Amino acid sequence: MSTAGGARAEPELRLARAYLLRVAEPPAPRLAALVSTHGAVEAAERVRRGEVPAAVAGETAARRETCVPERDLADAERIGARLVVPEDEEWPAWPLLSLEVAAGRGIREAGTPLGLWVRGSARLDEATGRALAVVGARASTAYGEHLAAELAHGLAGRDVTVFSGAAYGIDGAAHRGALAAPGRTVAVLGCGLDAGYPAGHVALLGRIAEEGAVISEYPPGAPPARHRFLIRNRLLAALTSGTLVVEAGRRSGARNTATTAGTLGKMVMAVPGPVGSAMSAGCHDMIRSSDATLVTSVAEVLDAAGPIGAPAESGNGNGHTRTTDGLTGQALRVHEALGLRAGRSVEHVVAESGVPAHRVRALLPALELDGLVERCDSGWRRARAAR
Amino acid sequence: MSTAGGARAEPELRLARAYLLRVAEPPAPRLAALVSTHGAVEAAERVRRGEVPAAVAGETAARRETCVPERDLADAERIGARLVVPEDEEWPAWPLLSLEVAAGRGIREAGTPLGLWVRGSARLDEATGRALAVVGARASTAYGEHLAAELAHGLAGRDVTVFSGAAYGIDGAAHRGALAAPGRTVAVLGCGLDAGYPAGHVALLGRIAEEGAVISEYPPGAPPARHRFLIRNRLLAALTSGTLVVEAGRRSGARNTATTAGTLGKMVMAVPGPVGSAMSAGCHDMIRSSDATLVTSVAEVLDAAGPIGAPAESGNGNGHTRTTDGLTGQALRVHEALGLRAGRSVEHVVAESGVPAHRVRALLPALELDGLVERCDSGWRRARAAR
Repeated sequence: MSTAGGARAEPELRLARAYLLRVAEPPAPRLAALVSTHGAVEAAERVRRGEVPAAVAGETAARRETCVPERDLADAERIGARLVVPEDEEWPAWPLLSLEVAAGRGIREAGTPLGLWVRGSARLDEATGRALAVVGARASTAYGEHLAAELAHGLAGRDVTVFSGAAYGIDGAAHRGALAAPGRTVAVLGCGLDAGYPAGHVALLGRIAEEGAVISEYPPGAPPARHRFLIRNRLLAALTSGTLVVEAGRRSGARNTATTAGTLGKMVMAVPGPVGSAMSAGCHDMIRSSDATLVTSVAEVLDAAGPIGAPAESGNGNGHTRTTDGLTGQALRVHEALGLRAGRSVEHVVAESGVPAHRVRALLPALELDGLVERCDSGWRRARAAR
Repeated sequence: MSTAGGARAEPELRLARAYLLRVAEPPAPRLAALVSTHGAVEAAERVRRGEVPAAVAGETAARRETCVPERDLADAERIGARLVVPEDEEWPAWPLLSLEVAAGRGIREAGTPLGLWVRGSARLDEATGRALAVVGARASTAYGEHLAAELAHGLAGRDVTVFSGAAYGIDGAAHRGALAAPGRTVAVLGCGLDAGYPAGHVALLGRIAEEGAVISEYPPGAPPARHRFLIRNRLLAALTSGTLVVEAGRRSGARNTATTAGTLGKMVMAVPGPVGSAMSAGCHDMIRSSDATLVTSVAEVLDAAGPIGAPAESGNGNGHTRTTDGLTGQALRVHEALGLRAGRSVEHVVAESGVPAHRVRALLPALELDGLVERCDSGWRRARAAR
């Protein structure tokens, strides 16, 4: 097993998490709540014994007696993968917080993962520090693939980790572009790391693991499935500061990722293309409805996404520079448009600050990363600890 | 001289207006103010005698003794044109109101024209009743010309008059597309109607006059000039409910028209194109900065532009259905977000109504046309007379 990732949790904990990841189909919000209450080891034991509330039983009954987490960990080790758990130092707690907040707002299927299977040299906290998802249609055009590779290449060259889904078409072009930078790229899969899927990308996945990471919630051996790609998409959206859609039809998985990113308060961007290209129709729809900002270059992506990245110290949120001293221009106006108690909507902030909506949507998550603002049920407010 | 246009003003008035249009280079705000105060006949007499305030003298001194309006009217008649004046029934007072409002807000060069030379069968009030400007680069691509023709054809087929500037490239394609519908199209020139400019479009201008109208502020014989195209652009923006830019470089006259349209509170739309095409870069910039709404089809143009058109009775603003009874959905929410006294900004209306900004920007001018809302110094408010 790789030794990447810094201080690591106890083997017992890892075994429990492996069991929990196998026993329920992600996301399993009731099981996650049980883990929150009792800890992973105790929760796994209760599930195994069947001593759980009915809701948790519904999520876990089918597999609770047949899971062999030792085998999953051994299978992972054989392909050079490791299980990263929330108790590990490298756990990307900060970006995943957006899923917890969304789950707290009652957004279905926004649950945080109970662990992540990881193949590759990159630490997850570092890989997610400055990260954008670059996604798009499988049935892409040469135009879209060229742009995906070019944009991913430029982003990776600017120290942005390019996340994508390793699918044919735009996803593959994005990974390849980032690898050519050289730059870090991460593939998030909707199947086990050993599934060899998609078949034509097995070698590409190997290169991604060498330069970055291939990650999945699904245990070794789990086959790809349509619903798993949708569940996977929430991780692409959550683990990054924003999602860039290069080409998408009117109905596409990439739009699903973008919608999720928007729901999580992340920046959503889309690349335009020729009118009449079905593969640009989804991008045009998103731009027209103001769900995405139009971008055509790396500079525009970086400008739209605002300050990308985690604070100097990653992890549990301590050690942030909680001060507005360094804020200037639009960021300061956005901060000042927020109250200390009641949450304000993005629309309210736009009206109050005079800062355009797409910048407000980019600045709020960035200010959140700096610990200066926080989300609440009714929107955004100043963080209490902010000086 | 054509007999189109309904009830006509006195010959004396027309002669005075012809003199005023010749004596000062449009727009001539001080001269316009003099006309407002004294009427056209008296104002023309004072200018001719040189008995005017210094500011007006500055606008009129160079030409006041050499103008021969009788010759301009005769020249116009020879090419089948007529001079339409504000005192004529067909004068497009309603759309031109936006220029008066802008001038009242101190926007330079927003002055209303003192008259319009018109060649063609269409009545100006009818031609501007449901009208959109379709404009773009002269150095257009085949892609842009195809789309301009297609969109203009579709709009003309839906009874929208397509306004454009008769230039090579996008403008010409838009006029041709509208003529093929068959539909009404209007060319607004930055030179006299007899200038034969641009040379390659003389036959096209003849066809436009047959099916619609060719109009200009500039008297017969006035040569084209760069600054005149910019002044002309304000008429394209003002006489229509919205401006659609099909292709535009980063710096282009079409963007100037679009900016003016935005300043006048009209809808601005732009067509996307391939990333990397310099002729789409201006459109992409406008969309990214939220200065324009992305559109790719006739249906999207009509949706973005909202209800296009003048009230049932055109002219001086009387006879509108000043009632909110017929309002539904977004239009009603926008109306309700406005106050009776203090003006509200578009941003405020967006926040208050929950209606997206691009729809608010489309709906407010439409509600204004229906006499339900009005502009004031601080933004928009409910019209006092609205029930």
